[in-house]
Amino acid sequence: MGLKSSDDCHALASKVHFPNTTVLDVSFVPAGTNLTFPNNHPTCLQSQVSTVDVCRVQLLRETGPASNVSLEAWLPMQDTWTGRFLGLGNGGLGGCIKYNDLSYGSKYGFATIGTNNGHDGNQGESFYKNPGVWEDYVYRAVHLEAETGKSLVDQAYGMPHTRSYYLGCSTGGRQGFKEAQLFPGDFDGIVAGAPAFDLLALIYSTGNGYKILGPKGSPTWLSPEQWELVYADINRQCDGLDGARDGIIEDPSLCQYRPEQLLCGDAAAAGNHVDTSNCITPAQAASIRALFADVHGTNGTFIYPRLQPGANGTAGIFNGSPPKYPVDFFRYVLYANPGWDISTLSPLDMDAARVFDRSSGLDTATFQGDLSAARDAGVKILHWHGLADDQISSENSARYYNHVARTMNAPVAELDEFYRYFRVSGTGHCRGGPGAQMVGGNLETDAGYAEGNVLASVVRWVEEGIPPEHILGKKLNAKGEVVMQRRHCKYPTRNVYKGPGPVEEADSWQCV
Amino acid sequence: MGLKSSDDCHALASKVHFPNTTVLDVSFVPAGTNLTFPNNHPTCLQSQVSTVDVCRVQLLRETGPASNVSLEAWLPMQDTWTGRFLGLGNGGLGGCIKYNDLSYGSKYGFATIGTNNGHDGNQGESFYKNPGVWEDYVYRAVHLEAETGKSLVDQAYGMPHTRSYYLGCSTGGRQGFKEAQLFPGDFDGIVAGAPAFDLLALIYSTGNGYKILGPKGSPTWLSPEQWELVYADINRQCDGLDGARDGIIEDPSLCQYRPEQLLCGDAAAAGNHVDTSNCITPAQAASIRALFADVHGTNGTFIYPRLQPGANGTAGIFNGSPPKYPVDFFRYVLYANPGWDISTLSPLDMDAARVFDRSSGLDTATFQGDLSAARDAGVKILHWHGLADDQISSENSARYYNHVARTMNAPVAELDEFYRYFRVSGTGHCRGGPGAQMVGGNLETDAGYAEGNVLASVVRWVEEGIPPEHILGKKLNAKGEVVMQRRHCKYPTRNVYKGPGPVEEADSWQCV
Repeated sequence: MGLKSSDDCHALASKVHFPNTTVLDVSFVPAGTNLTFPNNHPTCLQSQVSTVDVCRVQLLRETGPASNVSLEAWLPMQDTWTGRFLGLGNGGLGGCIKYNDLSYGSKYGFATIGTNNGHDGNQGESFYKNPGVWEDYVYRAVHLEAETGKSLVDQAYGMPHTRSYYLGCSTGGRQGFKEAQLFPGDFDGIVAGAPAFDLLALIYSTGNGYKILGPKGSPTWLSPEQWELVYADINRQCDGLDGARDGIIEDPSLCQYRPEQLLCGDAAAAGNHVDTSNCITPAQAASIRALFADVHGTNGTFIYPRLQPGANGTAGIFNGSPPKYPVDFFRYVLYANPGWDISTLSPLDMDAARVFDRSSGLDTATFQGDLSAARDAGVKILHWHGLADDQISSENSARYYNHVARTMNAPVAELDEFYRYFRVSGTGHCRGGPGAQMVGGNLETDAGYAEGNVLASVVRWVEEGIPPEHILGKKLNAKGEVVMQRRHCKYPTRNVYKGPGPVEEADSWQCV
Repeated sequence: MGLKSSDDCHALASKVHFPNTTVLDVSFVPAGTNLTFPNNHPTCLQSQVSTVDVCRVQLLRETGPASNVSLEAWLPMQDTWTGRFLGLGNGGLGGCIKYNDLSYGSKYGFATIGTNNGHDGNQGESFYKNPGVWEDYVYRAVHLEAETGKSLVDQAYGMPHTRSYYLGCSTGGRQGFKEAQLFPGDFDGIVAGAPAFDLLALIYSTGNGYKILGPKGSPTWLSPEQWELVYADINRQCDGLDGARDGIIEDPSLCQYRPEQLLCGDAAAAGNHVDTSNCITPAQAASIRALFADVHGTNGTFIYPRLQPGANGTAGIFNGSPPKYPVDFFRYVLYANPGWDISTLSPLDMDAARVFDRSSGLDTATFQGDLSAARDAGVKILHWHGLADDQISSENSARYYNHVARTMNAPVAELDEFYRYFRVSGTGHCRGGPGAQMVGGNLETDAGYAEGNVLASVVRWVEEGIPPEHILGKKLNAKGEVVMQRRHCKYPTRNVYKGPGPVEEADSWQCV
């Protein structure tokens, strides 16, 4: 009984059974193995090192006449298994089993399972004339992951899991909220990072950004060098708002960036040659203003929040080529027309996207403000967002939190009981950035399963009833030493420097 | 020769001549006279005390087959006249000679002239099927005021004026910019406060605010008591952003107010009786969010900036009755339909207003970004706006400044040569408020013609070439003693408390 050896692992191949599911492979993977995935889609990971001994189980579950979901579990051996179950999310339009997070979850004793979300690769062509694949993506893959994963735990260890958790970021963040909204029985604790909820508005908004800046070389487009000027100017105008000029903007929502100071000035207007590598034109200033403004549609309706100043990836995202997610969505999902041209994008396309989402009944938006079912089921939701996220504005996370507050008529103290949102400064899209960004939202931000780790925090909340008051983020140097710590504040509080210590010390800051 | 006695004054009656103009009355008014205006429209001033001996000249100038403009000059006696000429603006939809500002201008030796702007009263019925009256209002009255006033000075004093100035606020601010944009030869120096430019968007936006909150008693409407809660909560969230909790928000554009903390909470949702005098409902929270958000129209176009948090007059403006300016404009100007109902207001009405403004050729918007003609004519423009203005958001003044910067491709240093915008904290619509609001924009904010007085500042700029770097505002107690001074910063800099002195001292603050 149980999963104590590689033999126990191999034996699972013939032992485990699930409805409509093929067991593709079962293998024992010793700690430190460098697994390679030569058949993986090029947009997905090609290799991953395992951190502990695991039993690797690969499944394929049919979800319809022309759709199926790949599932992969990494099960720690019985003696390192904590009894906990962990389901993983995805990213972008993927399509990729997150082997890094399988490694991360199993490292800390979770029986961990991931999915390809119904298709392979971070691309949207798979949705073309196949609504079943879209349905897998919107909600079904992760729900089946929970169902199948829990059953696998039962069958593999010979005992049920104790508690179930979910970890995801970006599309994975949206999937986490979809679970909370639709299947509150699936997970006891949910870590949702940088959620891509209100997804179609996000996709439209990215396309709209491309329309604002135009193709590479347009008068409204900025070169990477010019974006560097803008980034520096944003810091100059807004870094001090939190009381410390440390290169990290603690509350970008306070930053009302004014690009006009970078104007080249008169000479350009007079038609003289001006070296615009050190300044910008009026048309470019107008583009920047439009990018940092909320997006609106027909009849003045709000669509999506602005980009957040201080998320310095704009040059990469708007590099002058049509952005892939809106192109793929409008071509392969909404219009089923591979010839659709993004230069035609207008607010009418957003209206069409809303009609599609309503009529599909799937609620891709995943923006339900009523979380009472999750609350009543005892689910704890830890929502976090990097404040230097250049792909998904954290202002949309605050918007959701406030939407929930209004929908549930709940001041902060009431939401605190089951739902908390943390703003993680100096942190990019799910990972990276100049701040104390190591918060354990994934393998890349793992600085140990201890205080400040979001996964450990939600476990403590669920199992000990001790909710996180803040997220203690760490910044490491190349040697892995901690060079900065900062307590990321629970929304709606914001972080201010109070001194007298250096900015690198958490105690120098205060959530107000 | 000249204007040395009351006899000289009375002699003007038969001496002065202007094209298409009737001299209605000429009278000598000794200092300290309490003039009453029993025939004035009830929305206009009914009395005014003169501050110095003046020769009062009342004129009526025809402007078309069914329109005319009342003009009134208060001319100081020759020995107190500085040689300067001052033209005045109006307010709202008025229609009122500003006797207070005639008293103010003449007090400091300006030959001062005002106008009724082509019709009597702060109301729009006079525009009904009479485009000539609208044309007077949009630009013609003030231009004729300049033309007629300068001629009157010539004829009365027997010598031309030395320099010409303009002073106005609200609609008067818009009129000042109209002069700068259309008749840059009229005035050497312009003081434009709280300009009502982009006028039709402002009017639409006020109507939109009424639509958001609804009539008195609607579930979306807030009582005055609830607004008091909101004002206090705004201060709690935003007053500290400038470094000092002194009840004055130095930069409201930084304030992203979150009303949800005032939600009543669960009990209300469960249908139990909740005393909402100490809290708000979700519907009200949504109203507040919409009011403090920029207004957008068809196709997602920007219409007008949000109300500014900290301008605590919202309860009065949205008291549950249809606001007069949008009602009058849409009824009597745009649609010539006295039965038009504001409950039908939609973004389509804004589109119609834009078409009207374009086709009229008058440019009521007065939002031209090219001020090069004024610059080239040597005009100096001092633009100021109260940051606690509850009627016109100062964010629209910043928006105009930035629009000029982009249109003229001019960084701050270039605009500084002829156009400066100052943000005056703790100050309401043209006057009043808890801050150092005495800046001399009108008689009510007159704390002496010295440093910090906007009129004195523009004179110094024009005549001595010394531009204002800031506006030193004063706050007086009931005895007229100065209890606070603050240097209001030139945009885009903002005021921060640096200490170590008390907040009441100007040196405790810094423009950054």
